[in-house]
Amino acid sequence: MSTQQFTQLPHKLLSVPGPVEVSDDVLLANAHPSMSHVSPAFAPVFGNCLRMLRQLLYTESGQPFIIAGSGTLGWDLVAANLIERDEKALVLNTGYFGDSFADCLETYGAKVTQVGAPVGGRPTVEQVEEALKKEQFKLLTFTHVDTSTGVLSDAKAIAETVRRVSPDTLIILDGVCSVASEEIRMDEWQIDAVVGASQKGISVPPGLSITALSQKALKVLESRKTPVASYFASYRRWLPIMESYEKGTPGYFATPSVNLIYALEASLKSIVAGPVSLEDRFRQHRDAAKRFRGEARQLGFETVATEDEACANGMTALYTPEGVAPPALIGALANRDITIAGGLHKDIKTKYIRFGHMGVSVVERPTDVTKVINALRESLAEVAPKSS
Amino acid sequence: MSTQQFTQLPHKLLSVPGPVEVSDDVLLANAHPSMSHVSPAFAPVFGNCLRMLRQLLYTESGQPFIIAGSGTLGWDLVAANLIERDEKALVLNTGYFGDSFADCLETYGAKVTQVGAPVGGRPTVEQVEEALKKEQFKLLTFTHVDTSTGVLSDAKAIAETVRRVSPDTLIILDGVCSVASEEIRMDEWQIDAVVGASQKGISVPPGLSITALSQKALKVLESRKTPVASYFASYRRWLPIMESYEKGTPGYFATPSVNLIYALEASLKSIVAGPVSLEDRFRQHRDAAKRFRGEARQLGFETVATEDEACANGMTALYTPEGVAPPALIGALANRDITIAGGLHKDIKTKYIRFGHMGVSVVERPTDVTKVINALRESLAEVAPKSS
Repeated sequence: MSTQQFTQLPHKLLSVPGPVEVSDDVLLANAHPSMSHVSPAFAPVFGNCLRMLRQLLYTESGQPFIIAGSGTLGWDLVAANLIERDEKALVLNTGYFGDSFADCLETYGAKVTQVGAPVGGRPTVEQVEEALKKEQFKLLTFTHVDTSTGVLSDAKAIAETVRRVSPDTLIILDGVCSVASEEIRMDEWQIDAVVGASQKGISVPPGLSITALSQKALKVLESRKTPVASYFASYRRWLPIMESYEKGTPGYFATPSVNLIYALEASLKSIVAGPVSLEDRFRQHRDAAKRFRGEARQLGFETVATEDEACANGMTALYTPEGVAPPALIGALANRDITIAGGLHKDIKTKYIRFGHMGVSVVERPTDVTKVINALRESLAEVAPKSS
Repeated sequence: MSTQQFTQLPHKLLSVPGPVEVSDDVLLANAHPSMSHVSPAFAPVFGNCLRMLRQLLYTESGQPFIIAGSGTLGWDLVAANLIERDEKALVLNTGYFGDSFADCLETYGAKVTQVGAPVGGRPTVEQVEEALKKEQFKLLTFTHVDTSTGVLSDAKAIAETVRRVSPDTLIILDGVCSVASEEIRMDEWQIDAVVGASQKGISVPPGLSITALSQKALKVLESRKTPVASYFASYRRWLPIMESYEKGTPGYFATPSVNLIYALEASLKSIVAGPVSLEDRFRQHRDAAKRFRGEARQLGFETVATEDEACANGMTALYTPEGVAPPALIGALANRDITIAGGLHKDIKTKYIRFGHMGVSVVERPTDVTKVINALRESLAEVAPKSS
């Protein structure tokens, strides 16, 4: 039994916006024999991951954190550490995940103002500027790619606006569905926190909360007037652990997800030190998304994102053509061994479908995207109402 | 390359009190091809895990929760959900993990009273009774096995005392280092919450917080006067997800650790439906611990736990003999490809070592324990001061 056959058992091609396909090397690393989290052999693996995350986020002074959890835990990390009860947060809303981040912030006592847009749209820079001028916000959050709508926010423009209009406001980029599929230049754009996860562009199985803080965010953490509002999600407790592992010395606060960190190391190596440069990686994602959208539109689908510049590059949400019910199409694709996702946004839930095209399926196996497009064409032909 | 060689790459035998050795089947499951967390194929796997956890904890009405995180997250789950600001908690302290649980409870605003004992001891039933009579506590916590001292609490006696003296007080069993290596009869003993993790007796890689609540605890959660003090660690948000997966229908709040849940299913199958009954499993752990202690004492080691009934069955903490420095002994064992752990309790940190003997290494490969004992004998002979 070869390595490849062994890890990649027959399975439906995963084309949802996370979890995504995982390479054999990474699955292999996830099957690493059990290791102590404080063993001298494991510490450098953890350290490598932290260093490679800095490369991926184009940051020198940013502090990455790898914590057992999911992307959602990153919201708690922000809400419990970077803002205090009754302080104000501005949430730019481009879908389900904006609502949820706002909900999380309110759980920890923040006063949330939201700037939204009709489904498929995104707040304009002018709207953001106007909101920032009305009140002083401790932090602003935006969903870089909202997994429910496939809407891409213009991270650079948002950050520029905040720095110009309200320089003290922390800029929080929710990158759960964008890290490693969209370019994020943390230092250049002056992003204060990136919230990510393992199972999207990074192409590792789910189970890791991956975040990074700027030095400015670390100072805000340090100078809190009230205690951090969580124990497990306390950046203060995790900071010395990350610093320690990066030096090659194990630290202990809570047991890290050892095997997933081996898997993360394997995947990050291929991302930041593989044959494809980071710049090319992001270009490949843009190209794949453009191709996918083009083909889908030719078939009669419309993107949920209302303009091309607001279409994510690692996923696409598509309204199905008139008379084509999403469940029928999802079923027809499943019969062709392809898994796609149904709707998530409450206002349009029954009218659209979602596809992932990120990570391994774009960079290492671009034929995955072709397979999905072909299967979509066949499935549509099968389930579309026949014109008489 | 055979399956076995493939997953169990050459590695040092892991004999720390978690993570523990993981079987090939479980590592294989952890390398499962990537799957959607909402796919029809994955939902029953999650559901099976929930049902098997009930069997493992001898409960019919208890509600298990499987959440991406570590054992420590379980403390936040208790502190953010089952007690409210300014309510009182009684923490029975048998080591490092009692201190930390108290710290976590205080983070969420609970008023904590601790009942401790000298290092290696445990509070007596009389002390517990006395504390419970002085004040009304919302909940009482105890560390079933404190990983820092190897002290086993008498869960049944503690629970009986609480039920008799203060029937409304919730009984919280921290079972991170005891679930699946010590018997826990949740229903019979009327335990209200069990806090566990994947990487100890359950013998899965780290990355899952595994907890269970009684119906009584669920009612307390339901009737809170103040909102749950966490977003990610909100049992209210997770409850419908667990109920949904158990019915075979995916739910979504935050992405579960799909691969680790495949691994959990594989391990729980061998635990609750394998050739060894649960009763025999716990007996094997008691026998292995007794053998290990006996051999170690013959070599001149003393257990940190001061009485035999207070010695854990899945791990042992040992004071090294006079003149034998723990780092030298740990190094000598590492040279024999065996990983053990150093001290963790601040008062005795430099004087003792810790061993794990649970899960796979006891039930499926009892020769592991023999190997460790033999290597300990050889290592001691190598590093002990020579008598002239």
